[in-house]
Amino acid sequence: MNWYEQPCRAPSEIHRIAARQRQATLTKPAGSLGRLEQVAEQFAAWQHTDTPALERVSARIFAADHGITAQGVSAYPAEVTAQMITNFIDGGAAASVLCKQQNIDLEVINLGTFIPVPDMPGLRQRIVAAGTADFSSTPAMTAEQVDKALATGAEVVDGLDCQLMIAGDMGIGNTSAASALMAALLDLAAAETTGRGTGIDSERLAAKTATIQRALNLHRQQLDTPLAALQCLGGFEIAAMAGAYIRAAQRQLPSLVDGFISTAAALVASQMNPGVQPWLFAGHCSAENAHQLLLDAMQLSPLLQLDMRLGEGSGALTAVPLIKAALALNNDMASFAEAGIAEES
Amino acid sequence: MNWYEQPCRAPSEIHRIAARQRQATLTKPAGSLGRLEQVAEQFAAWQHTDTPALERVSARIFAADHGITAQGVSAYPAEVTAQMITNFIDGGAAASVLCKQQNIDLEVINLGTFIPVPDMPGLRQRIVAAGTADFSSTPAMTAEQVDKALATGAEVVDGLDCQLMIAGDMGIGNTSAASALMAALLDLAAAETTGRGTGIDSERLAAKTATIQRALNLHRQQLDTPLAALQCLGGFEIAAMAGAYIRAAQRQLPSLVDGFISTAAALVASQMNPGVQPWLFAGHCSAENAHQLLLDAMQLSPLLQLDMRLGEGSGALTAVPLIKAALALNNDMASFAEAGIAEES
Repeated sequence: MNWYEQPCRAPSEIHRIAARQRQATLTKPAGSLGRLEQVAEQFAAWQHTDTPALERVSARIFAADHGITAQGVSAYPAEVTAQMITNFIDGGAAASVLCKQQNIDLEVINLGTFIPVPDMPGLRQRIVAAGTADFSSTPAMTAEQVDKALATGAEVVDGLDCQLMIAGDMGIGNTSAASALMAALLDLAAAETTGRGTGIDSERLAAKTATIQRALNLHRQQLDTPLAALQCLGGFEIAAMAGAYIRAAQRQLPSLVDGFISTAAALVASQMNPGVQPWLFAGHCSAENAHQLLLDAMQLSPLLQLDMRLGEGSGALTAVPLIKAALALNNDMASFAEAGIAEES
Repeated sequence: MNWYEQPCRAPSEIHRIAARQRQATLTKPAGSLGRLEQVAEQFAAWQHTDTPALERVSARIFAADHGITAQGVSAYPAEVTAQMITNFIDGGAAASVLCKQQNIDLEVINLGTFIPVPDMPGLRQRIVAAGTADFSSTPAMTAEQVDKALATGAEVVDGLDCQLMIAGDMGIGNTSAASALMAALLDLAAAETTGRGTGIDSERLAAKTATIQRALNLHRQQLDTPLAALQCLGGFEIAAMAGAYIRAAQRQLPSLVDGFISTAAALVASQMNPGVQPWLFAGHCSAENAHQLLLDAMQLSPLLQLDMRLGEGSGALTAVPLIKAALALNNDMASFAEAGIAEES
């Protein structure tokens, strides 16, 4: 058995019910905290207690370049991937600002960019290759490369000491890889899974969609397992994120899923190992065309819908304070009995 | 001219545009932070700077009882209003927990409950009467009472030193008053504005709706101004919240609107003084039936939709960290030029 097929324990339904019962005693109409009550119950099931806590969150941004950018699928040049890695470390990116504001531990993992990135503190260099191959004409990765990228995700998770993981992505062209993977794994057409990414116009969207559909047709015979689809259509950072989600679930560490790329990686992880899904929670639904459909397919209900479409973990990071609020309410509110308040008549 | 008709200055459109221009230089695809960018622009317009800050938020919970509870419109006995006032002060209520967690200054204002509440630190006693009259048979307030309640809201705001106000409500029966006000001010039927409040069943909902519609018919001749509608159908805490929103706008202090009661009070305020609306921002859309329709009518777009329906300011309090995230991103992200990153091709 491969490491990624090792089973994951299920969250504790007993503690989910205990938290639900606790919520019912608190000084509020039953159910009146809505989704925040579900959040507390979910963390109770993960942490095996009816008073779960969230003190330590870790964010890991997985970065890599994509050969598919040669097809003009993105609004930005591929060199931006390497430039953004430095920006994450220097504190200027959205994810950096949110992590600093919320005291969230951040590290960047470079899986391989077209332009090399110099070593710097806060950057883990785990170069698989200088970008994937162009999946419109050839598999994006070799079997060895996809194994190495998956294992890097597991290695990163093995070094974590936290109660919640956020995996963010950086890679110009990676919405194309994510759209292709979603289409392959959910048996959809490229037109149903492809969107504007960083903001291409309608003409380039049509070309991007056609490119992805052609690639799906080209690789059709090879897409018979989630791993094969990942190898043919994915990216190094997407494979690393999938590996991270799998290992996190195996370690009973929940993951807060971010946007379209992150959710596509979570889909790969869930199909490679069905025990992963109960360890996922969706931070937000992004403005990327197919994200809601992807979340629905994975039975994930996002906390936020703010029309964000940045990646980097930014949507998940924005949702963290809501989780902290939900847990504080669950843990610190008085019960009807404690406060001497009359219950429903 | 009455105090509440004194004009409000408009927010600075120049600074809204300056913030929008600033956002366009930051290291992210244009518009990719979605609603968070609009939040930053709104605060820029309010604070006359393209780098707005939010260090000081104040929450004020306005509490009072409602004569309409005699008609069995609520799932909870009216004595809960007074009991909850003590719970807010003791720290056991949802709003108390959220304020403590976020270091938000909280005060409760008692406008008049059926059961008197003893004096205690953190409680401002401004008793108009021991609850309103039953608006299903008589005006809820006298002219003197509505004036006193409105003025109390203004008095509370005059004592604030903050950059954002949250007005929360507590009053068993107050969704009935809010539904009646919404119907009167937007010329709707009770069936369109009435919901389950704290959680009544379908039979009691039908009776509540019929009671409100009868009251609307009874007072029809008196509902010719927003003030008259407030006097006939409102509550002391709703009037105080309306007064608070008006005075806040006059002082150029923005308000983060909470749920259905809070938004109904904001509707009254906006109709009493058209300069109020540009100083409002909606924290969330609640699960109460008519809240989305009410927000739409006021041209307010909520940040959160979490199926909350608690009142007390709880939805607005939950949204505060998103605002802080939006402002941190606006102020602290690097520009493309600063980070040496290539722009859109």
